[in-house]
Amino acid sequence: MGRLNINNINPHVRAAEYAVRGELAVKSEELRAQLSKGDTSLPFDHVISANIGNPQQLDQKPITFFRQVLSLLENPQLLDKEDVLINGLGYKTDVIERAKFLLKHCGSVGAYSASSGVYAIKESIAKFLERRDGFPADPAKIYLSAGASSGVNTLLHILAESPKSGVLVPIPQYPLYTATLSVLNATCVPYYLEEHKAWGTDLEAIRSAHEKAKAEGVDVRCIVIINPGNPTGASLSEDDVRSVIDFASKEKLVIMADEVYQTNVFIGQFHSFKGVLRKMQQENPGKYDDVELASLHSVSKGMVGECGHRGGYFELVGFDAEVEAAIYKFVSIMLCAPVIGQCLVELMVNPPQPGDPSFELYDKEYSGIANGLRERANALHKAFEQMEGVECGEPQGAMYLFPTITLSQKAIDAAAAEGRKPDEFYCMRLLEATGVCVVPGSGFGQKEGTLHFRTTFLAPGTDWVGRIVKFHKEFMDKYR
Amino acid sequence: MGRLNINNINPHVRAAEYAVRGELAVKSEELRAQLSKGDTSLPFDHVISANIGNPQQLDQKPITFFRQVLSLLENPQLLDKEDVLINGLGYKTDVIERAKFLLKHCGSVGAYSASSGVYAIKESIAKFLERRDGFPADPAKIYLSAGASSGVNTLLHILAESPKSGVLVPIPQYPLYTATLSVLNATCVPYYLEEHKAWGTDLEAIRSAHEKAKAEGVDVRCIVIINPGNPTGASLSEDDVRSVIDFASKEKLVIMADEVYQTNVFIGQFHSFKGVLRKMQQENPGKYDDVELASLHSVSKGMVGECGHRGGYFELVGFDAEVEAAIYKFVSIMLCAPVIGQCLVELMVNPPQPGDPSFELYDKEYSGIANGLRERANALHKAFEQMEGVECGEPQGAMYLFPTITLSQKAIDAAAAEGRKPDEFYCMRLLEATGVCVVPGSGFGQKEGTLHFRTTFLAPGTDWVGRIVKFHKEFMDKYR
Repeated sequence: MGRLNINNINPHVRAAEYAVRGELAVKSEELRAQLSKGDTSLPFDHVISANIGNPQQLDQKPITFFRQVLSLLENPQLLDKEDVLINGLGYKTDVIERAKFLLKHCGSVGAYSASSGVYAIKESIAKFLERRDGFPADPAKIYLSAGASSGVNTLLHILAESPKSGVLVPIPQYPLYTATLSVLNATCVPYYLEEHKAWGTDLEAIRSAHEKAKAEGVDVRCIVIINPGNPTGASLSEDDVRSVIDFASKEKLVIMADEVYQTNVFIGQFHSFKGVLRKMQQENPGKYDDVELASLHSVSKGMVGECGHRGGYFELVGFDAEVEAAIYKFVSIMLCAPVIGQCLVELMVNPPQPGDPSFELYDKEYSGIANGLRERANALHKAFEQMEGVECGEPQGAMYLFPTITLSQKAIDAAAAEGRKPDEFYCMRLLEATGVCVVPGSGFGQKEGTLHFRTTFLAPGTDWVGRIVKFHKEFMDKYR
Repeated sequence: MGRLNINNINPHVRAAEYAVRGELAVKSEELRAQLSKGDTSLPFDHVISANIGNPQQLDQKPITFFRQVLSLLENPQLLDKEDVLINGLGYKTDVIERAKFLLKHCGSVGAYSASSGVYAIKESIAKFLERRDGFPADPAKIYLSAGASSGVNTLLHILAESPKSGVLVPIPQYPLYTATLSVLNATCVPYYLEEHKAWGTDLEAIRSAHEKAKAEGVDVRCIVIINPGNPTGASLSEDDVRSVIDFASKEKLVIMADEVYQTNVFIGQFHSFKGVLRKMQQENPGKYDDVELASLHSVSKGMVGECGHRGGYFELVGFDAEVEAAIYKFVSIMLCAPVIGQCLVELMVNPPQPGDPSFELYDKEYSGIANGLRERANALHKAFEQMEGVECGEPQGAMYLFPTITLSQKAIDAAAAEGRKPDEFYCMRLLEATGVCVVPGSGFGQKEGTLHFRTTFLAPGTDWVGRIVKFHKEFMDKYR
């Protein structure tokens, strides 16, 4: 017997749950491996990973302009052969110019950058934020990160003073938040989103969760908002954003705005927390100056979909200088975010503009992805509408649908007999019967007595939707 | 006043120290910014970042084969134009084949991989380990990480059960270890390396540090070995490796072998912990089967020097299956290591071989870098030998020299008057006078009453060495 076993490792790591890549995901990889070894005994011939927003695994093509620039950053020797690039490979001049600009500022993508990122890239982000919000942004308050996940990890590390430190987290939520709070041994203070109000934020629900936690001695110090929502896709109205900011200001809560789906909006409009906060500060001089806001973005979602590059950033507003220094020190320990991912962030926030040589193709590819996502979301939604015991609001945004499922007592008993939650049981059977991997609602949190699952609408084609419909009917019949 | 201030954030983050990117590094960036704005008031015209092993910032050229493959991974559309690649750009056929191989297995570098990395890349690493050690390796026990730092972070997270959980860390050490243990609120158990024995590992020093910690109630569960050493460059003999393994086996300590400098060896030879452990297991059937070893490697060092790509891996030997599952879950929360960095790991462990079209150039570039490092190490060492009050052993490996400096009482008093440690004071004056940024020995730990600094020998040219010599003479004269 060696030293370490499951009972003597870090108990907070042991306690963390992360269903997006949990048992179902592991099982789906096993099935994929079986198929690739030529196993023909399964009732499907390929696995669909609808458990995770991973567009390029599901055949979404990367945007040409981005990848052309990255190819030059990886091999700057190509810049000595502009003629071949232009005439042989069809690279446009703006691709070459951008690569030169980025190389000038990062030196080499193989060199560590400053801990918080390449300064010129932070300047590009600041300009993007100014265009988006209509208010200035300060590059010195921007930190490049390895995807938004790493930014969330940094910010929660700073916040977690003691086990009593509490963070308000929406339920359902992306489980990064609960998992990281668990690892940090801090307190998750859940507040429920309102399914019947299209998964909107209900200030009363937030207020009562906050009061209850305070009464229990929790030092609530932050509120997480995922806008547009994951897994729900809901975009907050400007009024909702305002009321959250006002509440956070009164209660002295840091606002952590996870805005990685800001361009994935089908219904309504995206209102950034930064933009709305600046408006409120302008309208009420002095009143909201003490609000602390961290807002996060990423190259993984949107129409960019470059998850594997692990690029992202967060912007701080209203943070104390010494706290910022602690954040800088913390990110320094891991040295810097991947530099090629930082460059991809620059490309995302500063894409070709009308008149630029690469604009036409960029625009066509970008719109093609946006339209494809909307069409597939609607097709999937239509299928859910036909399924017995399944209810699902109109697709609103992000990359997911999160339908409610109602299962029979017989199905619930069968799940219990297997030691599973009913939604886990349903999702496992779905995977085994169809090869479609989704995540049970319990992985995100759901109101007591309700059941859901989350599926992406990224997979091309409609065959897999048909497989789900057929499975569901058989499942319902079996456990009737 | 907002919510967060330096006194109410996470006290363990507050307490962490990370000098490699600390005050001196920040100051050096300020000076660089001043120079780039055209300031001519400084006594130097460029800043040399000798504080961090960042070869490509200091003009080391990336290896062509690696970057050609990466350019194709970033823009797979180029593979449709093989003719242009070969005839227009001079890409060899093995570059194209390797890119196709990697794309086949990762799909797109913009897609998340499995949490522990692309399986085919883990297979390449396993083959490399088999060639290196002469013993089989299991791809399922290999985890790709964002540089070795992220692997260390994962492993220390798992180990840290409580504040009493202790980890034996060599002093001087790379401060990632102490900083991470501080953030985790676990106990660092320092053991001193022997400067007079060329910074070797002294088993007696380890044993007494271990005994002392146990007597104080520390639950010592791991020993960190940095081999070859950072900041010292020392390579352990096979006998030293054996005695550490034997000790760890008796005391049930997990061995964490940081082997990122395994190819940066000038004196002696690198002996991997995995290889030596397998030999000991073969020689003593059953005796060492319970040893738990995690060994780490990275693309950042060696002749690869691709720090900015954040690629690395660790291999586990002898870990409990449930502990491995907890490690898998933990790395899942951050989704996966950067995929392009994973691909670079594959290229590092599986470079062109004699007879391959790219071999000749690869070999020339690789040897050129290796020779350059050795020459610059020797030139720097020669300069240190001439400097009053400076003692420095022969360069042994890694990317650093770690000389002892002896300062006068007057200098020590001047440091105290500034509220600085004497070595910090010396390094700050050096930076201000020469633009050369090094790290004080106190950032790595040093025996009470001794003073050191760490400098890389990566910067090209000898001008900067001359600047150090001149500064040192003036400093010694001033504080005589």
